[in-house]
Amino acid sequence: MRENMTKLFEKIMDFKFDNYGRNFLLTKDKSFDHIQVTILLANWLKLIHQNHKSFRVFDNGLAISIFRDNSTRTRFSYSSAAHALGLGVQDLDEVKSQIAHGETVRETANMISFLAEMIGIRDDMYLGEGHTYMQEVSDALDLGYEEGVLHQRPGLINLQCDIDHPTQSMADLCKLRDYFGGFDNLKGKKVAMTWAYSPSYGKPLSVPQGIITLLPRLGMDVTLAHPQGYNLLDSEIEYAQKVASESNSKFTITNSMEEAFRGADIVYPKSWAPMQVMQERTELLMAKDKVGLDELEKSCLANNKKYVNWECDRDKMNLTKDKKALYMHCLPADITDVSCSQGEVSKEVFEEYRRETYHQASFKPFIIAAMGILTRFDSPGQIISKIQNNLNYRF
Amino acid sequence: MRENMTKLFEKIMDFKFDNYGRNFLLTKDKSFDHIQVTILLANWLKLIHQNHKSFRVFDNGLAISIFRDNSTRTRFSYSSAAHALGLGVQDLDEVKSQIAHGETVRETANMISFLAEMIGIRDDMYLGEGHTYMQEVSDALDLGYEEGVLHQRPGLINLQCDIDHPTQSMADLCKLRDYFGGFDNLKGKKVAMTWAYSPSYGKPLSVPQGIITLLPRLGMDVTLAHPQGYNLLDSEIEYAQKVASESNSKFTITNSMEEAFRGADIVYPKSWAPMQVMQERTELLMAKDKVGLDELEKSCLANNKKYVNWECDRDKMNLTKDKKALYMHCLPADITDVSCSQGEVSKEVFEEYRRETYHQASFKPFIIAAMGILTRFDSPGQIISKIQNNLNYRF
Amino acid sequence: MRENMTKLFEKIMDFKFDNYGRNFLLTKDKSFDHIQVTILLANWLKLIHQNHKSFRVFDNGLAISIFRDNSTRTRFSYSSAAHALGLGVQDLDEVKSQIAHGETVRETANMISFLAEMIGIRDDMYLGEGHTYMQEVSDALDLGYEEGVLHQRPGLINLQCDIDHPTQSMADLCKLRDYFGGFDNLKGKKVAMTWAYSPSYGKPLSVPQGIITLLPRLGMDVTLAHPQGYNLLDSEIEYAQKVASESNSKFTITNSMEEAFRGADIVYPKSWAPMQVMQERTELLMAKDKVGLDELEKSCLANNKKYVNWECDRDKMNLTKDKKALYMHCLPADITDVSCSQGEVSKEVFEEYRRETYHQASFKPFIIAAMGILTRFDSPGQIISKIQNNLNYRF
Repeated sequence: MRENMTKLFEKIMDFKFDNYGRNFLLTKDKSFDHIQVTILLANWLKLIHQNHKSFRVFDNGLAISIFRDNSTRTRFSYSSAAHALGLGVQDLDEVKSQIAHGETVRETANMISFLAEMIGIRDDMYLGEGHTYMQEVSDALDLGYEEGVLHQRPGLINLQCDIDHPTQSMADLCKLRDYFGGFDNLKGKKVAMTWAYSPSYGKPLSVPQGIITLLPRLGMDVTLAHPQGYNLLDSEIEYAQKVASESNSKFTITNSMEEAFRGADIVYPKSWAPMQVMQERTELLMAKDKVGLDELEKSCLANNKKYVNWECDRDKMNLTKDKKALYMHCLPADITDVSCSQGEVSKEVFEEYRRETYHQASFKPFIIAAMGILTRFDSPGQIISKIQNNLNYRF
Repeated sequence: MRENMTKLFEKIMDFKFDNYGRNFLLTKDKSFDHIQVTILLANWLKLIHQNHKSFRVFDNGLAISIFRDNSTRTRFSYSSAAHALGLGVQDLDEVKSQIAHGETVRETANMISFLAEMIGIRDDMYLGEGHTYMQEVSDALDLGYEEGVLHQRPGLINLQCDIDHPTQSMADLCKLRDYFGGFDNLKGKKVAMTWAYSPSYGKPLSVPQGIITLLPRLGMDVTLAHPQGYNLLDSEIEYAQKVASESNSKFTITNSMEEAFRGADIVYPKSWAPMQVMQERTELLMAKDKVGLDELEKSCLANNKKYVNWECDRDKMNLTKDKKALYMHCLPADITDVSCSQGEVSKEVFEEYRRETYHQASFKPFIIAAMGILTRFDSPGQIISKIQNNLNYRF
Repeated sequence: MRENMTKLFEKIMDFKFDNYGRNFLLTKDKSFDHIQVTILLANWLKLIHQNHKSFRVFDNGLAISIFRDNSTRTRFSYSSAAHALGLGVQDLDEVKSQIAHGETVRETANMISFLAEMIGIRDDMYLGEGHTYMQEVSDALDLGYEEGVLHQRPGLINLQCDIDHPTQSMADLCKLRDYFGGFDNLKGKKVAMTWAYSPSYGKPLSVPQGIITLLPRLGMDVTLAHPQGYNLLDSEIEYAQKVASESNSKFTITNSMEEAFRGADIVYPKSWAPMQVMQERTELLMAKDKVGLDELEKSCLANNKKYVNWECDRDKMNLTKDKKALYMHCLPADITDVSCSQGEVSKEVFEEYRRETYHQASFKPFIIAAMGILTRFDSPGQIISKIQNNLNYRF
């Protein structure tokens, strides 16, 4: 989809930009307005970058990253967004830091944020923990700002928690809008969000949960498929059902990958751990029960083995719309005969869509930058106009 | 204290800015002139930031940080200051680096500094080491600059050593000036710098030493209180006595927390290890004597236990001026029933003053930025005027 | 050599800047044109910095560093160059990152590069690995750019591989040009690139290989000296012989340090491991054979011991041209009685030339910056003119 920079800018300026809040933690907390303008803004920023121009907003300042789980791509996406906005990145390494020594979240959040404009947190290890931690940080920042300790309330962005992965699902939505040519063309499209076999275990639920809670709001028909027992959080299922009915779209759950693929416009085959396993795992991790964790892993991998046929191969792709549904993945995928002997997707299918998956990922830094702008400022419209009025070359 | 940005700028420009030197290592090495203008400049920079404007000085360049001890807050304060000045931060990780492999300090200091504008070092683990190391680095930088190897002599800032913690004590002075409404109002104020009980051990002496060597110069009456044996370095005690008499203020030492609190305008209850223990600890650390260190810790904690009543609680606060002296702490504090079962301060007192301690900490990045400007340039006045003449919004 | 900034700029603009390619991996892949203009540009950038002016090229963007081996100086040189160009640095820590978990180089290279302008890689541990890895990354970046996944093709710079160390050898050439007063004065100069004794082992071959493959191209007579068995890669020896004959200069190999020193204008005594040892070492490292590695080290150190007399001392220096050849080293050197009891160079000789070795190192950040500019842009000449037309003070 070739878009016109100026037209897109005008489309963005049509929004009212009424208070979007200082956080982007869960898409389900966000108005549809906020969702849409974030997508459009990300697309516009990407166009600006593609044209070798700058959307730098800050003369100086700090972007803080807190990664409670390892991450290459998210780290680079966040860092890319921060530097493009004109911010330096300071990572809070909790191993190095004094947090490990019983310091309260509230205090640390304030101590590190005196000059912070944006904070990104990834915390997806423990079910029931990540989102709770981010809310604590949010409350601490609100308090610090109210009390005049902080001169500004930094925007807080969820880089993946136990419930949602908004920078992923929103980047995915950017890709879908681009691929199908606009929001309107997404209405009625069939999405197969399905579990897939992986030789690893313990993959978070946040990606599938992010997809099923976001795409129905665009009027897309989402089918969630997974083997018996590989449930997602009830709260997210219920929300998906609610918004599907509100937007007159269908949300279906099945235990058959084939059924989900049949006639799908988009397939998103990805492994995750059963919710119950993640809950057990959380308790074991917190109890530092090494033996228990090893046993859980063994039993879990053994159980996964039963579903090795949940692989996205050509035969299954042939069930999809015109045999050529868009294959999506958050990457890295477990690719059969490439990264493992049996995985989520066949080498053939992945190769066919490899470029599309790379392109899907390429929206992430711009989604983060858009979230940064929209959560940091009271009147993002002014900032966006400023960008438009000072569009200079980056070099 | 509401200050006027322009008035403060004019007050700053009244200073002569005669050579302040290229380092800020110990406040006692600094002229009273240099001390005062650093405080005023830090306040001015904070006001600029509070008004969402920029005090960026550098178009580009490097700020180097060397942390020989873990630190969250100091790391973020330094990084915040560096980025606000327009510098990128490069951390010298001595574990990663080749320093560990017998490379001379002189050589490394030069090899990393070719484009460095500011260097911050924290080295407070070993008594007799930290300050010495910083002086070595300083000599190396002077030599490199004289020999034309370095194009500029970066400013060198002590982020905490075995003797002093100037970024802390100077930030504390900012807070005091702000709280009491100017330097003049500090004359004659009673400060209780007292030891307090902590379940941990081995806390550096640099904070109390920083306070007793700085505040008497402002004409404040400082009482140092600690249990028998919890002495500070003789050199610092002697200096405190000297400057107290020079500025006609009182410097007293007592073994009673209550006595120190009686009538105090400011209380600063904080744990530290006895000097003798720190000396033993240094030798054991250098000898890598794990067993010896464990024994020392045990005996030391046991000895601390004798002084659990050295806690800043409401009863002791009631001994202070109008029962409402300003409670100060460098944070994080050991708070009874919050971060430990028995600590430096009661939950009640800490909660009452929590906002004040956060606000106290908020001066630190601006103190570091002010030190950076005043040590880096031959004519800081020109740079400061430049900031004033180009006051633009940060975004 | 005092150079005139404007004259140097004009000299640079005389070049045609025809396509230099997007990588700087091996000097032997580079046209003599590209080599020369890189040196001149680095010198010009250094002059700009020395005059407290800015050669910032980017408004914002990312420089990626990948260090597969520890490094202080190269890390700081790269970071200094990146920040001077206006880029923030994001390090790919492969321990933290998911690369360790079987992710393909191709994918990662794309996932991290969406906003990258420059990538620097150090990978010198494994013989036969480093350069190969860099080529894989290069291919991945080309593909990503062709497919429109990347908006720009970042410049890729070799910060040391198993074959070459171009940022070192090019910085060395900057020093030589500066010391002898221009390229023309280098013709016919005698260089002794000799092995020297070190109590350590396993030092890479890339520095001597970098020197013998680059300097003959300047018409310099290079003598490579090492004990029996301390060979370099045949491919590099053959290349050195080829270019020496092409430029009518002499390339000689001897097993006598004295012979190499006799009449030399420049001496470069440095330890390295025999190629065969590096090959064994590579296999053992890959097999994670701890015992094998220890044995190899023992036998290797024992063998080194036979050549303790391969030390650059005053007596050997007296064999050189007028007894005062230029002593060069990439640093850190193993200095007898300083960093070890017996090493590559005597304390006396090192002290005599210490300032020269520091100055030699000072070119490195500017060489990296020059490589960054020349590999990133289709028309570097435009960028260079832009720098010249916007020469402002850095502060």
